[in-house]
Order: sequence, then structure tokens, then C-alpha cells
Amino acid sequence: MAAVAGLRAFRAKGPTWLRRGPWAPRSAGFCSPGAAGTARLESEPRPTSTRQRDGIRNIVLSNPKKRNALSLAMLKSLRSDILHEAESKDLKVIIISGEGPVFSSGHDLKELTGEQGHDYHTEVFQTCSEVMMLIQNHPVPIIAMVNGLATAAGCQLIASCDIAVASERSSFATPGVNIGLFCSTPAVALGRAVPRKVALEMLFTGEPISAQEALLHGLISKVVPEEQLEDTTMRIAKKIASLSRSVVALGKATFYKQLPQDLRTAYYLTSQAMVDNLALQDGQEGINAFIQKRKPIWSH
Amino acid sequence: MAAVAGLRAFRAKGPTWLRRGPWAPRSAGFCSPGAAGTARLESEPRPTSTRQRDGIRNIVLSNPKKRNALSLAMLKSLRSDILHEAESKDLKVIIISGEGPVFSSGHDLKELTGEQGHDYHTEVFQTCSEVMMLIQNHPVPIIAMVNGLATAAGCQLIASCDIAVASERSSFATPGVNIGLFCSTPAVALGRAVPRKVALEMLFTGEPISAQEALLHGLISKVVPEEQLEDTTMRIAKKIASLSRSVVALGKATFYKQLPQDLRTAYYLTSQAMVDNLALQDGQEGINAFIQKRKPIWSH
Amino acid sequence: MAAVAGLRAFRAKGPTWLRRGPWAPRSAGFCSPGAAGTARLESEPRPTSTRQRDGIRNIVLSNPKKRNALSLAMLKSLRSDILHEAESKDLKVIIISGEGPVFSSGHDLKELTGEQGHDYHTEVFQTCSEVMMLIQNHPVPIIAMVNGLATAAGCQLIASCDIAVASERSSFATPGVNIGLFCSTPAVALGRAVPRKVALEMLFTGEPISAQEALLHGLISKVVPEEQLEDTTMRIAKKIASLSRSVVALGKATFYKQLPQDLRTAYYLTSQAMVDNLALQDGQEGINAFIQKRKPIWSH
Repeated sequence: MAAVAGLRAFRAKGPTWLRRGPWAPRSAGFCSPGAAGTARLESEPRPTSTRQRDGIRNIVLSNPKKRNALSLAMLKSLRSDILHEAESKDLKVIIISGEGPVFSSGHDLKELTGEQGHDYHTEVFQTCSEVMMLIQNHPVPIIAMVNGLATAAGCQLIASCDIAVASERSSFATPGVNIGLFCSTPAVALGRAVPRKVALEMLFTGEPISAQEALLHGLISKVVPEEQLEDTTMRIAKKIASLSRSVVALGKATFYKQLPQDLRTAYYLTSQAMVDNLALQDGQEGINAFIQKRKPIWSH
Repeated sequence: MAAVAGLRAFRAKGPTWLRRGPWAPRSAGFCSPGAAGTARLESEPRPTSTRQRDGIRNIVLSNPKKRNALSLAMLKSLRSDILHEAESKDLKVIIISGEGPVFSSGHDLKELTGEQGHDYHTEVFQTCSEVMMLIQNHPVPIIAMVNGLATAAGCQLIASCDIAVASERSSFATPGVNIGLFCSTPAVALGRAVPRKVALEMLFTGEPISAQEALLHGLISKVVPEEQLEDTTMRIAKKIASLSRSVVALGKATFYKQLPQDLRTAYYLTSQAMVDNLALQDGQEGINAFIQKRKPIWSH
Repeated sequence: MAAVAGLRAFRAKGPTWLRRGPWAPRSAGFCSPGAAGTARLESEPRPTSTRQRDGIRNIVLSNPKKRNALSLAMLKSLRSDILHEAESKDLKVIIISGEGPVFSSGHDLKELTGEQGHDYHTEVFQTCSEVMMLIQNHPVPIIAMVNGLATAAGCQLIASCDIAVASERSSFATPGVNIGLFCSTPAVALGRAVPRKVALEMLFTGEPISAQEALLHGLISKVVPEEQLEDTTMRIAKKIASLSRSVVALGKATFYKQLPQDLRTAYYLTSQAMVDNLALQDGQEGINAFIQKRKPIWSH
């Protein structure tokens, strides 16, 4: 897939919806295309590639030789691709997929040896956590399209997306325990996606579960034969791209805001959001179009 | 189904178990039969109908022409039916169902246009949220019996019930996004019933899931062929009606109280509840009857 | 199964990882083998039996005549077996199973009549809750191996384990409501393992669910034919026993610590845990062994 020129433009300021905590990386800048370019050898493939059409941005993990490992460079590239023009009305939905037979094998273990040391390790895990939270805080829905094995932080990436569609040949594992590194950060996303016993059996044994088991336990929302994977995912993405961006963004933000609250607070927040939604231009346009039996025209 | 005369008697005071927050409607009264009657035309069907026999109250959404839309009148009628003599020993369990091929299509969109304005919209969503929380705070189990499509707030109503039984032909959707009104209040109940990815795919695409998928993901607890729906639901209701009302009420209240707590607090609360349960007349009667190998006689 | 001599040695001091709240039993001591021995008649079977080999401890509920009821003596014996040398490097994983056709029938109802009184009832429920929380706070994974019926606190015990494997003939129920004693403490564990509607239908009707339903709803993580139950469970246990005990212990503690937190706090805690894990001797050994393509040698 061809990368859209300029998609990785340097963002000097983060958007307001990206809430940064006290432990966010000190540098607010994201990897610039120039800097990343000079850091890579010509023969090395770029870690991600992107294209965008009709409101749908495809971000592809593009280092199949290294099983799309989430190296620090890959994580920064992914962060940059997700953040790029996030507030643009031209962006409606993001699809993340992997090139080759492995969706992603998780962290690059060569970055986690004693040689790099404590500070480097901290940066790797903080950047990874930031990318995962970014998905949830992003204004547009982010879909994982999975065709193959996803392990450790690769499995975490899928669990962190809003929607996940997988081919039947996909499988999912958190095998860190095999190499003495318990998948504690992947467990944050996994433990919020599947029942506790399923999460712990995966974490304690490191053994993979199939796509069907992942569906059964809620890690993904759809399983299809490999040849239908792209069509099914694109059908969902096109549907989302046809909707009002402002309505979807309000709905997504409200969903994650109310979910951890007690029931009364959740209903207070969402009743407010419903009234706010009705006051949006697209809120009234949608209802009027429905009552007038015509297609709505969104202003986003 | 015939309505029980007097079932909608005006309740001047809410029961103590209905905890009202600061944003509850200013008027504490519920719709009186007289007021509701005069507001409706002769030709218009009553929005709900009820009957009660052997401790089982059936509440039926009875406006099939309007796909049992949860208009403000329907919500108030439903609230009144649920609250009616809630503390009576004669009431053991409530079943909510819908007349016609649609269980409920959610809010009446004609009530949500710009004409009604901000205050009316606020009342609609607050009344709806109040009904949903009422189900959880009610002393007796409330079962949804679903035969057909349930969308938006109709799907929320099912997700809010304690138990839900559905026929195979039923389906469930939160399609508000199609008309520019994200199902944020339904998402409160849906997001607490199914895995996050399933909820978000439903919310972002508006597409329905089948009864089997709803069972798989925990939105409902049982799926049966249409012709067995009433028998299966009545079997559950009769079983509950045969038990001690005071024991069931204590158990239901304790369940929702402990669920959001940390584990230690939850065990503290429930250990206390078990000791209190044993001190109930029906607690000791039940255990004595078991040890004496006889049928217990409940005092409720 | 033969009991390992000395496994029940009296523990004068509880380990630091067993966090005791203000309502923990006043006596910090656990049942000594001598005391328990003298309290039992020769003809009465010991309530639990244990054996330990190659890092795997088997604890068997061994009172099949009483359907492995969780009497106060059984709970204390189980607590003692779980706590015994919990900090020893020789212990890697615990399996809990039941002798005979019933895994466990829950509390001994003869201990819950009016004769024993309030204080005794309180001790029973507090001891039970303590055992359930102990499982989660224990440094090694604890697996339930279920072959048969598990009811009430027996079902709670399974829901409280980290992993649960069951034979196809197993079933699960919380039938307390039938005898006027709502399963409120079992509901703590059940309500955190299965969807709310499934939990409430089980609690309100007392009716059992099958092993397949338990798998569907997340109460257990694997179902196998009866003849494969021990092999499957042992395969999981052996896998865990082959891993670094210190890494698994850090991972388990971190998992339960992060699960109830908000996402940002959870990622903060776990990113820290990942860095700490890498600093462990077994953390670096595992990664070095992987990069050098050799088998790791754990120091635990």
C-alpha cells in the first residue's frame, strides 16, 4: 500500500483531546518524516505505511521481516500516523493492519536487554501505553483488521482498538512469560476485553487462542474467512465514513467517559450528551431528514 | 392482555428504595390514570397494559402501531406500572414484553425535534434514565421477554432488566448514529452488558445483532424458539414467585450494591448480608425445612 | 491421593502478601495438624488431602460423603493447605479438585441454623471470604479442576480461582434462594466472572448451568471430556511450573492490582511493573536466552 505524501507532517502541538498525564514523554514532538527517514537505511522498510481515501485512513504495520515488531520506531511512527490531522473533517475512521503473515509480534526484544538500560525501557513502555490510550481518546473510530498471529503488545494493540475484525487463521497470545517478561501492559487491555479466567490462562501459559475463541470471549467482534476480511472491514469502515463525524466523535468520547462511572453518574453524563447531541447541527438534520423521509446531509 | 383496574393508582410518595438524585424530575408524582386518560384520544391505544396473577405482573408495551416507541407518555406509564404497589407481598416478579412484531423502537423521534426544545428533551432523557435505574432498584426481579426487534432505548430497556429471554427471531440494535443521534444513554446499559468491542461495533455502525449473538455476548441470558418463549419465561417467573420475596429482595439489592465495589468491600458487605439473611424469618425457615426434608413455608 | 506429611505445619505468622482488613479473624493462627487431628474421629475422613511434586501442589476436597461441603473445618483446612510454605521456591502452582461426583456443595447448612448463632455464622462467612481472597493474593497461580456439580460456595471457589478447567459432566449453580439463603457471597465471585444477566438468572432461579454454558459465559476457561480432565489440567500446571516463579508472581500481583484501576493508572502501574520485571534476574536471563536461542535457566 502506498503512503500518502505528507501524512506524517510534524505536529508541533498535541490536540486538546489527548490528555497527557504527568508521566507522558517529556518531548511533546512526534517523529518527523525527515528525522525518521535519516535514521533508517535505504534497504530497511519503513515501519508503517498509510493511505487515506474517502475518509478512511489505512495504517499498515510494514515490517514483516521483523514480524511487525512494535519497536520504539514503529510505535512512534504509529503514533504519528494516528495523530496526523486527527481533527480534520476529511478523516472519519482509521483501520490498522499488518503486512505479512504476522499482525504484530509485540515489543522488539533487542530493545529490552540490559544494554539499553532502565531509561530506555521506560521510554518504550510509556510510548506503547501512550499509543494504546491514544486510540481510545481519538475522535474517530479505530478498527483493527487482523490476518495472522498477534502476540504480546501486538495482541494489546488489537484489544485497545474500538472494533476488531479478524480472519479465521488469526490467533492471539500473550507469551511474555515464556521469556521471563510477564505481559503486564498487554494485560491491561486484555483484562478489560475478555473474562478474567481467559486472560489469566493466556497470561500464565502463554498459549494462543484461536480467532473463534477470541470472538467467543469478546477480544474481537467479528471473524470471517480470510478472503472476506478486507471486504467486511471496509463495509464497516464505509458505513462509519457515511455518518456524521461530529456525532460519532461525541458518542465515542461519551462512551469511554461513562463506562467506568457508577450507573447514576453514567446516566447523568449521557443524558446531558444526548441533549447536546440534539443541539448539534447534524443532530437536528438527522432527525428532520428521518421525519421527512429523506437522506440527511451532514455538516460534520 | 387485560389491564388490572386500579394498577395505575397515583403514588403521592416514592418508596424509600427509589433513591432520587439531584437531577430527578422536580415533580415527584407519577402519571395518574385520569390525567393520562384525558390526554389520550379514544382511538389511541393505551401505551402499556398490565395484569397480575399469582405474584407475577405482566407489563406489556401496547402501542404496536408506533412500534412501542418509548414516548414520554409510554415511559411514564411504564414507570407507574413498575412502581405500583412495589412493596406489596403479592408482587413477586415483573415481566416486561411488547405487543406486535417490534419489542420497542426506542424514543419517539417526533419528541426530539427542535420544536420541543431543550427542556422537553431533558425531561425525556431523565425520565428514561429514571425508568432504567428503577428496574435495578426495584425489590423484585424484572424480566424482559423479547419477541422481535429492539432498538435504541428499546435495546437499553432489555439490557437494564435483571433477566432477559428472547425468541430466535429477535434482534437488537443501537442505530441512533444513522439519524445523527448517537445512542449514548442506551450505551450505558449496553456497555455494562456486552464486551466493549461488541458494544462499539453496534453503536458505530447501527447494525443489528441476532438473538444468538446477543446470547453469546451476554446481552440476554436465554434464547428459545418463538413458540416456547412464553412458557420458558413463565417457568422462570413461576420459580421466582415460589420463593421468599424478602430473601430475593435482600439478594437483589445486595448484588447491585457489591458489584461496583473492590473485592474486600464486596465480601464485607455480602458476609454481612448473609448473616442478616440467616436472621430473617424465611432464612431460618428455609434451612430448617431443608434439614427436616420438608417444603418451606415462607412468610415473605 | 496421598497427603504430604507436614504440609499442614502451623504458620505462626501470615505472609506479607496476605493483606488483612479490619474484619479479618482476630486469631492470626491457622489450624494446626494436631488440633485438627484431635478434633476429628478416626472414622471421619480428613476434610482435605494434599500432595506436592515438581512444583505442583494438589489440594483435594476429600469429604465426598458430605459432598465436599465447605464446613468451617474444611475452609480452615483449605486455607492452611493454600498458605503452607507459600513463599517456597518449590511451589509453582496449586490445583484444587474434589473427590467424588460433587466438586463441592457449598456451606454446611448444619452450621447455619439458629443453634450456632450470629457469631458462629459470622466466622463461617468471614473465613470463607478470606479463603476466596487468599487465592487472588497468593503468589502462585491456583487452578480449579472441576469434575461434577459445584454449588453455592463451591461455585464461588471455582469463580475465585485464577484458571478453571472442567469436565463436560460438570455443572454450576447458586441455589441458596431455594432454601431461603440468597447466595450473596458466591455472587461476589460469580458477578465478576460472568455477564450480569447470567449471574442474576442463576441467583434468582437457583437452576444449574452446564459446563458448555459456563465456558460460553466466562466462568471457566476450558471444557474437556472427563477422561482428558486430569491431562489437560496437568499440562497447564506443568507449563506454569516450567516458568520463572518470580516473574509469574509479579505478573499475577500486577494483574489484580491494575484491573480495577482507570486506564491511565493501570498503564502507569504496569509500565512500572514491566521495567521492574526486566530488572529481575529472570527477566534478563529470559530475554538473553531468547536472543541467544537457548533455553533459559531460571533462578526463581
